[in-house]
Amino acid sequence: MGITDRQEEMLGKTVAALSDQDNLHNVCHMRWRGEPLPSQQAVQEIIGLCRALIFPGFFGERDVNRFNITYHTGLYIEKLFAVLTNQITAGLCFNASCEGFDLQEVKHRAKEKAEEFISGLPELRRLLYTDVRATYLGDPAAESTEEVIYCYPAIRAIANYRIAHRLVRLGVPIIPRMISEQAHSETGIDIHPAATIGESFTIDHGTGVVVGATAIIGNNVKLYQGVTLGAKSFDTDEKNNPIKGIPRHPIIGDNVVIYSNTSILGRITVGANAVIGGNIWVTEDVAEGEKLVQAKANNILRFKQ
Amino acid sequence: MGITDRQEEMLGKTVAALSDQDNLHNVCHMRWRGEPLPSQQAVQEIIGLCRALIFPGFFGERDVNRFNITYHTGLYIEKLFAVLTNQITAGLCFNASCEGFDLQEVKHRAKEKAEEFISGLPELRRLLYTDVRATYLGDPAAESTEEVIYCYPAIRAIANYRIAHRLVRLGVPIIPRMISEQAHSETGIDIHPAATIGESFTIDHGTGVVVGATAIIGNNVKLYQGVTLGAKSFDTDEKNNPIKGIPRHPIIGDNVVIYSNTSILGRITVGANAVIGGNIWVTEDVAEGEKLVQAKANNILRFKQ
Amino acid sequence: MGITDRQEEMLGKTVAALSDQDNLHNVCHMRWRGEPLPSQQAVQEIIGLCRALIFPGFFGERDVNRFNITYHTGLYIEKLFAVLTNQITAGLCFNASCEGFDLQEVKHRAKEKAEEFISGLPELRRLLYTDVRATYLGDPAAESTEEVIYCYPAIRAIANYRIAHRLVRLGVPIIPRMISEQAHSETGIDIHPAATIGESFTIDHGTGVVVGATAIIGNNVKLYQGVTLGAKSFDTDEKNNPIKGIPRHPIIGDNVVIYSNTSILGRITVGANAVIGGNIWVTEDVAEGEKLVQAKANNILRFKQ
Amino acid sequence: MGITDRQEEMLGKTVAALSDQDNLHNVCHMRWRGEPLPSQQAVQEIIGLCRALIFPGFFGERDVNRFNITYHTGLYIEKLFAVLTNQITAGLCFNASCEGFDLQEVKHRAKEKAEEFISGLPELRRLLYTDVRATYLGDPAAESTEEVIYCYPAIRAIANYRIAHRLVRLGVPIIPRMISEQAHSETGIDIHPAATIGESFTIDHGTGVVVGATAIIGNNVKLYQGVTLGAKSFDTDEKNNPIKGIPRHPIIGDNVVIYSNTSILGRITVGANAVIGGNIWVTEDVAEGEKLVQAKANNILRFKQ
Amino acid sequence: MGITDRQEEMLGKTVAALSDQDNLHNVCHMRWRGEPLPSQQAVQEIIGLCRALIFPGFFGERDVNRFNITYHTGLYIEKLFAVLTNQITAGLCFNASCEGFDLQEVKHRAKEKAEEFISGLPELRRLLYTDVRATYLGDPAAESTEEVIYCYPAIRAIANYRIAHRLVRLGVPIIPRMISEQAHSETGIDIHPAATIGESFTIDHGTGVVVGATAIIGNNVKLYQGVTLGAKSFDTDEKNNPIKGIPRHPIIGDNVVIYSNTSILGRITVGANAVIGGNIWVTEDVAEGEKLVQAKANNILRFKQ
Amino acid sequence: MGITDRQEEMLGKTVAALSDQDNLHNVCHMRWRGEPLPSQQAVQEIIGLCRALIFPGFFGERDVNRFNITYHTGLYIEKLFAVLTNQITAGLCFNASCEGFDLQEVKHRAKEKAEEFISGLPELRRLLYTDVRATYLGDPAAESTEEVIYCYPAIRAIANYRIAHRLVRLGVPIIPRMISEQAHSETGIDIHPAATIGESFTIDHGTGVVVGATAIIGNNVKLYQGVTLGAKSFDTDEKNNPIKGIPRHPIIGDNVVIYSNTSILGRITVGANAVIGGNIWVTEDVAEGEKLVQAKANNILRFKQ
Repeated sequence: MGITDRQEEMLGKTVAALSDQDNLHNVCHMRWRGEPLPSQQAVQEIIGLCRALIFPGFFGERDVNRFNITYHTGLYIEKLFAVLTNQITAGLCFNASCEGFDLQEVKHRAKEKAEEFISGLPELRRLLYTDVRATYLGDPAAESTEEVIYCYPAIRAIANYRIAHRLVRLGVPIIPRMISEQAHSETGIDIHPAATIGESFTIDHGTGVVVGATAIIGNNVKLYQGVTLGAKSFDTDEKNNPIKGIPRHPIIGDNVVIYSNTSILGRITVGANAVIGGNIWVTEDVAEGEKLVQAKANNILRFKQ
Repeated sequence: MGITDRQEEMLGKTVAALSDQDNLHNVCHMRWRGEPLPSQQAVQEIIGLCRALIFPGFFGERDVNRFNITYHTGLYIEKLFAVLTNQITAGLCFNASCEGFDLQEVKHRAKEKAEEFISGLPELRRLLYTDVRATYLGDPAAESTEEVIYCYPAIRAIANYRIAHRLVRLGVPIIPRMISEQAHSETGIDIHPAATIGESFTIDHGTGVVVGATAIIGNNVKLYQGVTLGAKSFDTDEKNNPIKGIPRHPIIGDNVVIYSNTSILGRITVGANAVIGGNIWVTEDVAEGEKLVQAKANNILRFKQ
Repeated sequence: MGITDRQEEMLGKTVAALSDQDNLHNVCHMRWRGEPLPSQQAVQEIIGLCRALIFPGFFGERDVNRFNITYHTGLYIEKLFAVLTNQITAGLCFNASCEGFDLQEVKHRAKEKAEEFISGLPELRRLLYTDVRATYLGDPAAESTEEVIYCYPAIRAIANYRIAHRLVRLGVPIIPRMISEQAHSETGIDIHPAATIGESFTIDHGTGVVVGATAIIGNNVKLYQGVTLGAKSFDTDEKNNPIKGIPRHPIIGDNVVIYSNTSILGRITVGANAVIGGNIWVTEDVAEGEKLVQAKANNILRFKQ
Repeated sequence: MGITDRQEEMLGKTVAALSDQDNLHNVCHMRWRGEPLPSQQAVQEIIGLCRALIFPGFFGERDVNRFNITYHTGLYIEKLFAVLTNQITAGLCFNASCEGFDLQEVKHRAKEKAEEFISGLPELRRLLYTDVRATYLGDPAAESTEEVIYCYPAIRAIANYRIAHRLVRLGVPIIPRMISEQAHSETGIDIHPAATIGESFTIDHGTGVVVGATAIIGNNVKLYQGVTLGAKSFDTDEKNNPIKGIPRHPIIGDNVVIYSNTSILGRITVGANAVIGGNIWVTEDVAEGEKLVQAKANNILRFKQ
Repeated sequence: MGITDRQEEMLGKTVAALSDQDNLHNVCHMRWRGEPLPSQQAVQEIIGLCRALIFPGFFGERDVNRFNITYHTGLYIEKLFAVLTNQITAGLCFNASCEGFDLQEVKHRAKEKAEEFISGLPELRRLLYTDVRATYLGDPAAESTEEVIYCYPAIRAIANYRIAHRLVRLGVPIIPRMISEQAHSETGIDIHPAATIGESFTIDHGTGVVVGATAIIGNNVKLYQGVTLGAKSFDTDEKNNPIKGIPRHPIIGDNVVIYSNTSILGRITVGANAVIGGNIWVTEDVAEGEKLVQAKANNILRFKQ
Repeated sequence: MGITDRQEEMLGKTVAALSDQDNLHNVCHMRWRGEPLPSQQAVQEIIGLCRALIFPGFFGERDVNRFNITYHTGLYIEKLFAVLTNQITAGLCFNASCEGFDLQEVKHRAKEKAEEFISGLPELRRLLYTDVRATYLGDPAAESTEEVIYCYPAIRAIANYRIAHRLVRLGVPIIPRMISEQAHSETGIDIHPAATIGESFTIDHGTGVVVGATAIIGNNVKLYQGVTLGAKSFDTDEKNNPIKGIPRHPIIGDNVVIYSNTSILGRITVGANAVIGGNIWVTEDVAEGEKLVQAKANNILRFKQ
C-alpha cells in the first residue's frame, strides 16, 4: 500500500519535534564523552553473576561439579569485576555535572569499590544462608533448603537487597535502586536498598511487601505478603519539596512477625518478639513482646442472605 | 532408551484429540487468510519504541547524543509506524467475523490511526513529564527526575497506560489491553486503558494497584500500593451475563491522595483535595477536602504476651 | 587502566574462598554423574508448550490454520514429551541421596509420568475452558473469551496451577513449584500447586492473591486481587521445626465470591454461595450463603480538613 | 576521549554526501512501496528448507523419526511456500520499472510459480539421488551414500544448482543467481543456474569448477576440481556492450570425464564417452570416445640441481 | 491473498509424497532410539574449542590473561570432552546396523577415544607451531607469527587436518571428514584426514589445493595454491565399483616445494628436496633434488596484435 | 555414565600443560592492560558497515527509502567510526612491544585514521562503481548492474580490497589482512591489501585468483578465475629468512585481459592492452598489445579409444 506524501510529511515533523533540543530537556539522557551509562541489562548481569557465585549450581551454569567449580568461579569473578566497575562508574557519573569531571579518576574509584564489594562475597553468602535457613524453618510447605534457594521469590528479593545494600554502603548511586527494582518487578517485593536488615530475614509469599529507605529491621524477622514498613508523612521545605534523608520509617526489633497486608507507618518502634496480626494499620509504638490483632468483633458484619 | 510402541500410539492419539476441529472450537485462534495477528512480542516492541521516543537515552538505545538523536528518532518513528499499523490491523480483525471483510480497507484505517497516534507523541511526552515531576516531588527517596524515569515502576505503568489510552480513544480493540497487561506483569500495577486520568499522576511503590475501566481521575492525584478503584457490583442481563459499558468505578477529584491498600468501590465521587487513609473500604461519596482514616481505637486489640 | 597486583591477589583469594568445598556445603547444587538438573528455562518451555497445545494460536506459533494444526500439535507433543521426561527425571533426583540410585530406572519412571501427563491434556483443555468462560462471564470489561485467553493474567496463573497440580498428583517433586513460581512472578498470583481447585475458577486482577498448599476450593469460585487463603499458624515439632503436611488452609465451597484484600486463615470452612467482602480478616467458619462485610460505621473516621 | 567538533562536522558532511539523491543513483536499492526485496537470508532459508525436505535428517532438524517425519515435512512445506512466494515476488520486482506495476498481480504469479516448484520436489529428490549415487560410485574414499550426502560439497553445489535451475525454468529472475552464488561461496563450485545438466552428475573436490550459463551437460558426467566449461569470447554490439543470450559454452556428451584444471571453451561439442586429461585448454570439438592428454614429453623440463 | 483449496490440496499431496517411507529410503537419516547424531554445528564447536585451546587468545575468548588462562582452559577442556564424546558416539553409530547394537558400550568406547584425543592436545600444539613457523619463514609478506596464526587460511586448514587426522587414527568414522570439509569450505583447501603429513608443513594462499586420502608428505614441505596430490585412476571390482583403500596418491619427500596449479597424480614418489614448477602435470617419479619446470619455449605462442 | 577418577586426573593434567606459561610462549595472544584486541567479528562488522554505506539497500538494512536513507547513513557512520577506531587501535597494538606504550596516544592516532578513512567513503563509492560497471559490461550473463552488486563475488572481493587498501595507506597493521582474508574465505579470491589496483577492475568467477602484495595493476584490467599474479622466488637474508618489502610481483598495464588459471610471476611488466590466454605460465615481460596463447598443437595428445 505504501505511504502517502502527507504521511511522510507528518512523520518528518514528528521526528523534528521529538529531536528538538529544547523539547528534549529533562526527558533525555544524553552523553557525548564516552562515559559508561547505567544499563538495565548490565545490572541484570551483575545480579546473575552474584547469585551464581553465592549459590553455584542453583543459579548461573547449572552443571557445576568438583572438576569445574574453581574455573567457573574464576571466570564469574573476573566478569563481575569488569561489569561492576563499569556500572559503578556509570552510577557515579549519573547525576554528576560535567564541569571539572575527571573520568579516569572516577573509574579508579569505581574499581576500588568493585574490589571491596567482591572481597565481601563470602560474607554475603554466609548472611544469605541465614535467610535461606530461616525461610525453610518458617514454612511447612518447604521441603528442603534446596527448594527454598531454587523456588522462593523471597530469596531472590533478599539477595538483591543484600547486594544492593552493600553498594549503598560503598557510596554507589542509582545502581542499587536498579537492582532492587529488578527484584520488585520479578517478585512484587519492594525493599529499598538503603534499609537496614539483620540476619535470618524472611518473607512469605511476598507480593506487595514494601520496606522503606530508612527502615531498620533486626535479626530473625518474618514478614508476610502485603506488609508495608512505610512513612506516615514527610516534611517539605519552603518550596514544598520533600526534605530528603529524614528517618521516617519504622524500627523493627528482633524476632518480630508481621502478618499479611498490615502497614506499619512512621518512625515508630516495634519491640523485639512482638507479633502483629494481618490487615491492620499501625502508627504507634509497639512494646516488646506485645501482640496486636484486628478487632474482629467490631469489624465484620454478617448477614444471612 | 527410546520410546515404546505403546507410547508412540498414545502420543498419536493425543495429537489427534488436540487437533480435532470440534475440540478446537473456542480455544483456538485460527487464521487462513493472511491477516496479521496480535502479537505479544510486537506489542512489547511498540511499548519499547514509544518509551525510547519519549525518554531517549533512558529507554531504547542508551548512547544518544547530539549527533545521532535525529537519526535514532527517525528510525524509531518509521519502525513504530510499521509495527503499530500492523498491530492495529490485527486488533481490528481480532473479533471481526469473516463475512464481508475487506482487509485492504482495514489496513488503510489502521494506517490512519497509527498516523494519528504518532502525531500525538510530543503531547504524550509533555504529559508524561508531568507525571515524572509529580513522582519526584512526592517521594523524599527520589534523588532526581532522572532516577524517577529510570527506576520507578510507576512511570512504566503510567507510560503504558497513557499509550494504551490513546489507542482506546482511536478505537483500537485488544491491543490497549495487551499493553496494560504487560505493565501489570512488569510492575503489579493494573490500570485499565479505558480509564480517564489527568496530569501529574503518581503511584508510590504500586504493587497491587487496580484502576477500573470507567474510573475518572483528576489532576495531581497520588495513589499508594494496593489501592483499588473498583466496582462494587455489576448489573447482569436477563441471561445473567454482565452488562458491558455501565459506569461502575469511582470519580476522583484533583489533588486527592489515597494511602496503601484502600479500596474505593462503585460509581462514587471523591471530592478534590480529599485524603483517604490506608487499609480502608470506601463505598460512599467523600466530600471535597474531607479526610478519612481507619478508626484505630476500635480496630486493634493489643495483648501482652 | 589495567588491574593491580593487589587486585589480582584479592580476586584470586575470593575465588578460592567461594570454591572451597566446606564453604560450598548447603549453598551449592553439585552434580558429577550426568543426571539432568531442574532448569528454569526448561520449565518455561514446558509451560509454553502446554499453553500452545491447549490454546493453539493464542500461545506458541500464532499462525495456526487448518493445514498446519496437526503438524504443529505433533511436534509440540513430541517436544513436550522429551523436555518433560527430562525435567521429571531432574525433579526425582533433586532431593535424592546418591546411595543406591539407579538413574535408568528413574528415567523410566519419569517417562511413564510424562506419558500420563500428556494423555491428560485434552481434559486439561476442557477444564481450563471452564475457567475462561467463568472469567468472561464475571467481568463486564471482557469483550470476548478470546480476549480473556489472550490478556487475562488469571488465565495464565490458573493454567500454570492446573499443569503443576497434575504433576503433583503424579508424584513429581520441585518442578510443580517452579511452574507455580513462574506464574507468581508473571502475574503476582501465588497458588500452591498442591491446592485443590474445582472447575470454573476465576480471579479478577489477581495481584497479591495467595492460595495455600492444603486449601480446597469448590466449583465456580471467584477471588479478587489481594485475597489470601492462608494458614493461621502452624505446629512445630520438638525441635521447633514446622510439621509438614498438616491441613492448615481453608475449605471454600461452590459459588463463593471473596472480594479484594481479604484474608481467610486457618482450616476453616466457607460454605457454598457465601459472599465475603473486601479488606477483612476471617478466621472462623462462614455458613452457607452467609455474607460478610467490613463494619464501615465503626471503621472509618471522617474529618473535615 | 570523546569526539571533537571538527570530527562531528566531518561525520555530518560524509552523511550528507552519502545520502545525497544524485550520488545514490545506481548504487542504491531504494523502495518505498512495500514490495518485498530479495534477501540473502531468505534465500539461505529456501536452500535450507529444500535440503531438509529432500534429505531429511541430514539437513534441517536432525532428529527425524517415524513419528515426526510427516509433521516436520508439513511445516517445512508450508514455510517454503511462504518464503519462496515472497522471494519470487521480490525477484519479479527486482529489475521492473515502477510504471504500470500491479503488485497484487505479481504476487499472484509468484504464488503459482512457488506452487509449481513445490509440486516438483519429489522429482528433485529422485534426480539428486542419482547424483549422490554417481558420487559414491566415483570415489574410492567415500564409505557410504550417507557420507556423500553429509560431507561432499559437490552434493551441496549440485543441489543448489538443481533448485536454482527449476526456478530459472519457471521464469524467476535474480533469485536463482543468489542461490548458485551461495553454493559458490560455500564450495568454490560456480555453476550458472541457466546451464542444462543431466542425471548422475558428479564433481570431485570441486574448488574452482566453473560451468557457464549456456553449457549443456549430458548424463553421467564427472568433473574434477578446477574444470572450466567457459566462453572463448563473446560478441559485442555497436556500443561495445556484450550481446546477451548467445550460446557460447560447450556441449558435453554422456559419460564424459574431465580431469582437474582443464578448460573447455566456446560452443564446441565433446562427444559421449570422451575422456579429457587435466591441465589442458580445449577450444575445438572432441569426438565421441576420444581421449585427450597433455603432451608431457614436450611440456616439462627436468634439471638435476 | 490467502491460499486456494487447490493449493492446499497440492501441498498436502507433496507432504505425503515426501514423507512416504519407501520414497525416504536412502535419502533419510532416521533415528528412533535416542542415539546422538553427527552435527555440523557440534563439529564446528569441536574445531573452535581445539583452536581456542591450542592458540589461546587468537581463537575463542580473546581476552586471555595471566589471571584467567587456567579457568578458560579448564572449561574448554571439559566442554570439549563432552561434545567430542557425543560426536564420536554419533560417528560410531553413523553407518552401524541396528542389530546387536549396545549404545552404552559405544558411549564407553567413545569416551575413551575422546580422552586419548584430549591427552594429545599439548603435542598437537607443538606440531602446529612448527607449521606456523614454517609459514612465517616462507612468506615475505608475513610480518609476524602472530599474523600467521590470526590471518592465514593455511593454518586453519592444517589445524583442522591435524585434529581430524588424530581422530582417524583413533578409529572415528565420518567426524574427521566433517572437520576437513569445514576447512575446505572456509579456505578452499581440501586435505583428506587420512593423509599422512610431517612437521613444518605450509601452504601459500591455498585455494584449490587437494591432498588425497593415501598421500604421504614428509617434513618441511610447501605447497602453493591449486596444487593437487591426486589419484591417476582407481581400480574397480567386478561390479565396476571402486575398490576402497588401495594406495593411489603420491609420496612426497622432505623439503619439497610444489608451485601453483600443478598436479601430482598416482602412487609415485617425489624425492626429498625436489622443486616442481607451476601449472604442470606429473605422473612419474621425480628423483631426489630434481627440479621440474614447464617447457615455456614450446608452450606459448606470442602474437603482436 | 559419569567420569572416572582416572579421566578427571587426565583432564586436570592437560589443563595444567596447556596453561603453563612456558608452553604458551608464541602460541598465546595474552593481554592484561585493557587494550582492544583485533576481532574477526568486529572486522566483519566493519566490512558490513562499509558495504551498507557504499551500496545502501543492497547490503545492510534492505528497506532503504527516501524517508530513512539519512537516518540509516548517520547511524552507520557513527557505528563505523566507533568500531573502526577500536580495531585500528587494536591493530596498532598488535605487534607493539609493551615498553613505553601510551595507550591514550595510540587511541588518539587511531581516531584520526578512522576519521580520514570515513571522509574518503564517497570517493570509495565512486571507485567501486567503476568496478561494477566494468563487470557488467564484461559479462554477457549479467542482466543489470543491480545483479552485479547483489550477486557477483568479485564485487565483494574488490570492495574488501579497496577498503583494506585504504587502511594500508593509512598505516594500519593487521586489520587490512583480516579484511582481505574474509573476502578470500567468502569468494576464493585472495588480493593482498598492499597491492595497487586502478579503476574499472573486474574478475570473472574468481575462485583461485591470487594478487600479491607488491603487484601493480592499471585501469580497466580483467582477470579470470585461477589467475595468479605472484612472486617467482624471494631473496633471503644471511639467516635464510625472507627479506620483506622487495618488489616481487608483476606490473600489469591498462586494459589487459588475463584468462583462467594463468600465472604471471615475478617483477615483470605486462604492457597495456596485452591479452594473455589461459593455463599458461608467464615469467618474462609481455609487450604492449601483445597476445599470448598456449601452443595447443604441441600441447595435447589425442587418442581414439
